[in-house]
Amino acid sequence: MGVPLSDGAKRIIDKKNFAHVATIMKDGSPQVSPVWVYRHGDDIMISTGVDRVKTRNIQRDPRVALSISDIDQPFPPVQVRGRVVEIIRGEAAVEGFVEVTKKYTGSEPAQLPPAADRVVYRIEADSVVAPEK
Amino acid sequence: MGVPLSDGAKRIIDKKNFAHVATIMKDGSPQVSPVWVYRHGDDIMISTGVDRVKTRNIQRDPRVALSISDIDQPFPPVQVRGRVVEIIRGEAAVEGFVEVTKKYTGSEPAQLPPAADRVVYRIEADSVVAPEK
Repeated sequence: MGVPLSDGAKRIIDKKNFAHVATIMKDGSPQVSPVWVYRHGDDIMISTGVDRVKTRNIQRDPRVALSISDIDQPFPPVQVRGRVVEIIRGEAAVEGFVEVTKKYTGSEPAQLPPAADRVVYRIEADSVVAPEK
Repeated sequence: MGVPLSDGAKRIIDKKNFAHVATIMKDGSPQVSPVWVYRHGDDIMISTGVDRVKTRNIQRDPRVALSISDIDQPFPPVQVRGRVVEIIRGEAAVEGFVEVTKKYTGSEPAQLPPAADRVVYRIEADSVVAPEK
């Protein structure tokens, strides 16, 4: 069971801001990359490819951290530590790709990727530091 | 001995882009936060406070990762994995604070912090993924 996102965290996540998501490599070192994010309630959702380093990493160790700066007011940022509690695959992962593409571009994706190529991580937060509002 | 930064990595680091730096918590989980960065040759420099979570983390495990999206062209980003090879303290750390403040704000800092409160991490890259130019 995670902790809820604050209103400030939700506001910044719901804008077209990038999240920088950190995962753990096999040797215990960190890895971090920018991603598009969206939100279902208190869960943070990331749509990405199955063949990414981060996807391999979270299958080994589901612990992740996210850092999100609001483009209009970078500090204070949103900082989340949490866990990937579900890796969504198949047509539901394509639906996530469509949802996040519409959020960031305002349009439907020009074409849909093969379902086998996509995953969506569902992340529960264990710790949230963010502006209150 | 690290690897050199590509011209594309240097270009994006030298702009007023935020770096999101990931470190490892005591329990092996990741932590990530946005920082200002500057560069001395192939070394990436981060000026921050001594009392930050990331500073405690890198004293235990110097392995870090950075993700930097160019504000004008977010993809492809710069992704670096490397190590903090030196923690600079004292007056030299205040000089780093001044250098990075001038880079991001164009002005001298309004006031100088106590030397005891500041550190600068000097980071060598072991892996760099970035635009070529």
